[in-house]
Amino acid sequence: MDPAARDEPTVGEVGEFGLIELIRKDLTTSKFVLIGPGDDAAHVSTTDGKFVVSTDLLVEGRHFRRDWSSAHQIGRKAAACNLSDINAMGGVATALTIGFGAPAELPVSWAVEMVSGFEEECAKVGAHIVGGDVTASDTIILAVTAMGDAVRPVRRDGALPGDVVAYAGQLGLAGAGFAALSRGFRSPKAAVDAHRVPSPPYAAGPQAANAGATAMTDVSDGLLADLGHIADASGVAINIASSTFAIPEPVLTVGEALGTDGMVFILTGGDDYALVATFSSETTLPKGWTQIGLVSDGSGVKVDGKPYDGPSGHQHYR
Amino acid sequence: MDPAARDEPTVGEVGEFGLIELIRKDLTTSKFVLIGPGDDAAHVSTTDGKFVVSTDLLVEGRHFRRDWSSAHQIGRKAAACNLSDINAMGGVATALTIGFGAPAELPVSWAVEMVSGFEEECAKVGAHIVGGDVTASDTIILAVTAMGDAVRPVRRDGALPGDVVAYAGQLGLAGAGFAALSRGFRSPKAAVDAHRVPSPPYAAGPQAANAGATAMTDVSDGLLADLGHIADASGVAINIASSTFAIPEPVLTVGEALGTDGMVFILTGGDDYALVATFSSETTLPKGWTQIGLVSDGSGVKVDGKPYDGPSGHQHYR
Repeated sequence: MDPAARDEPTVGEVGEFGLIELIRKDLTTSKFVLIGPGDDAAHVSTTDGKFVVSTDLLVEGRHFRRDWSSAHQIGRKAAACNLSDINAMGGVATALTIGFGAPAELPVSWAVEMVSGFEEECAKVGAHIVGGDVTASDTIILAVTAMGDAVRPVRRDGALPGDVVAYAGQLGLAGAGFAALSRGFRSPKAAVDAHRVPSPPYAAGPQAANAGATAMTDVSDGLLADLGHIADASGVAINIASSTFAIPEPVLTVGEALGTDGMVFILTGGDDYALVATFSSETTLPKGWTQIGLVSDGSGVKVDGKPYDGPSGHQHYR
Repeated sequence: MDPAARDEPTVGEVGEFGLIELIRKDLTTSKFVLIGPGDDAAHVSTTDGKFVVSTDLLVEGRHFRRDWSSAHQIGRKAAACNLSDINAMGGVATALTIGFGAPAELPVSWAVEMVSGFEEECAKVGAHIVGGDVTASDTIILAVTAMGDAVRPVRRDGALPGDVVAYAGQLGLAGAGFAALSRGFRSPKAAVDAHRVPSPPYAAGPQAANAGATAMTDVSDGLLADLGHIADASGVAINIASSTFAIPEPVLTVGEALGTDGMVFILTGGDDYALVATFSSETTLPKGWTQIGLVSDGSGVKVDGKPYDGPSGHQHYR
């Protein structure tokens, strides 16, 4: 925490309604938001009479650390991981709600900067905060729900034998950044920054949906774990070729420093919020998508034809 | 906690995905749910191309206590307070998401029973769980977002001088129950039960919207506090007549036991999730609505023409 923050007003001093007012006064809006924050519920319009919705619950110390990331970065990441879920359906988010739990001694400025980062990330897709809730809690809690439009929602269960597997976005950077931060390093910057604020490929989800993607998900638990979700839901086997990945320089650097093969971060690192999808082999992949493997009859995910025996993706309660 | 629970599997033992699977397998659905839980996002249809949305963040020890309420009761109340927000817009909820944070040592049965109560409450309005998130946390967290349809959303800011003020549902019971529980009592049952599981008047919201209500909100902070939100948002004064309230017997009982005027619970008790609304004086109030006051020029809320000098409604951080 910024030492200067000790003289700033705290969340407890301004109170629940004071904090809500401070946050609300600068919020932006769009034509989709018919009734915004401040009433019992918001009212949001859709493009096609339907909406997609996804929710995430983020807890300090487990999903973010105030000594690793600024309030602004934590807000951006909290928005990004939810916007990514909408992206992974081939959708575009229009509206988000945010539940904020915080200890009374938290500086108000932290909350305001977190919301500012949250809004900045939302602006990348044209989405806006339409409602929220504030409560006291021992640690900081961010409960985020994102809603939006997906004219052709792409599920996880549509992959077919013969389809190609492709990804868009970054892989391994955030995982390498997490590993570096966990050992007390503050570099390489590109990796550490990717852990602090991911860069989901927001254009790639709707483009894949338009191109006819048969299945899609985002990489939040790790590439193999998330491809496993597609394989399980679709009842197919997936084989990816390790030679198709260019391992980014910062990932190699972290791997060398920690004595780990950089490929481990590509295959199992979470939190980059890349997209993986399957397409018919006749589909021309949209710009930004790279083929990495094939779908076949069977089950499970293999790398170069073999089960992967490295560490697996992230689960809570482990 | 049930002593038998010590032999039951814990949330930590079954893990994040195990718990999600256990919760998900019994979930019910409706024609509104085009894609339910299990994908990156749910897909929900609307009746009129728009949707209302509200969110609440509930934290153990602040919003509920495991030694006061069963898991089933806590689940019902978590759903009820969100469904009430949709009710307060004149809407009908169709879909909810639930973010669940819990310590690893929590028995799985607690989580399953909580979700069962949550679903039971949702069934009262025909709503269903469409998605969620599970994470480890030191205390139990319930982050709920409710979405639904409101063909004529009723805001807080439409009350006009000359309107009548009316309420539907229960007042004072939950507040009296909370006061009793806080002093170590477990009775009177009707009051304690009302605190554990509120009974929001789910039919009354849409009926008030249809009847042309000019402003509406639910009573979550306390009648005077929530009428204050309508008065502030609408730029009007509200005066209510204390003689119009029948104080329920259990509220009188708690008042006598604690040396408190029962009217205090009617005016300031939260958590009953009654509705208060304003209507043109020419409107025939829908069934279940009782007139309690009038709107006039000015500001603030008065009781019998005077500012109320008792304790005020609930705020966090106090």
